[in-house]
Amino acid sequence: MAEFQQVTVAKKANIYFDGKVTSRKLTFADGSVKTLGIMLPGEYQFGTDAPELMQIQAGALDVLLPGSDQWLTVTAGEQFAVPGNSRFSLKVHSVTDYCCSYLK
Amino acid sequence: MAEFQQVTVAKKANIYFDGKVTSRKLTFADGSVKTLGIMLPGEYQFGTDAPELMQIQAGALDVLLPGSDQWLTVTAGEQFAVPGNSRFSLKVHSVTDYCCSYLK
Repeated sequence: MAEFQQVTVAKKANIYFDGKVTSRKLTFADGSVKTLGIMLPGEYQFGTDAPELMQIQAGALDVLLPGSDQWLTVTAGEQFAVPGNSRFSLKVHSVTDYCCSYLK
Repeated sequence: MAEFQQVTVAKKANIYFDGKVTSRKLTFADGSVKTLGIMLPGEYQFGTDAPELMQIQAGALDVLLPGSDQWLTVTAGEQFAVPGNSRFSLKVHSVTDYCCSYLK
């Protein structure tokens, strides 16, 4: 499916790291939330509240998940899950287009 | 209005200038199209097909509209219109969050 239908989109972007990471919030009819975002090459640390599923649509990165000392390479078409209330680190190698689902 | 409701959002981003300009395509029930985008500081040239209305939600830029030799400064809350089938230049001074409406 190349698009999300019948969603509500916040007009204002989420802007992090001086614009190197930005995203748009989508709210679905069932109340669930996703963000569609872009990450430029660089190293970043994020924190989660709810558990998150990160689907990489384009680009490539390495992720260090909480509790791990192994960086995992994730590329277009692949995904990784992050537990809630935790921190994870990213090394973004090329412009990355992602979809983040906030799980319950 | 802080959000767009009942829209279709293309999953994949539009990515230009090595990710320094990116946007998401929104299609409305009436078939009209807008993009919500981010521009990082830099100088860019764009071409239009349909006429466009650019609303600046955050940030600041100067625009050189087709047929003009005067750069106009446009900041958050302001907008500018570009005729169809023309080119315009931008000098983006700070991370800019915009909404582009494609007019008929």
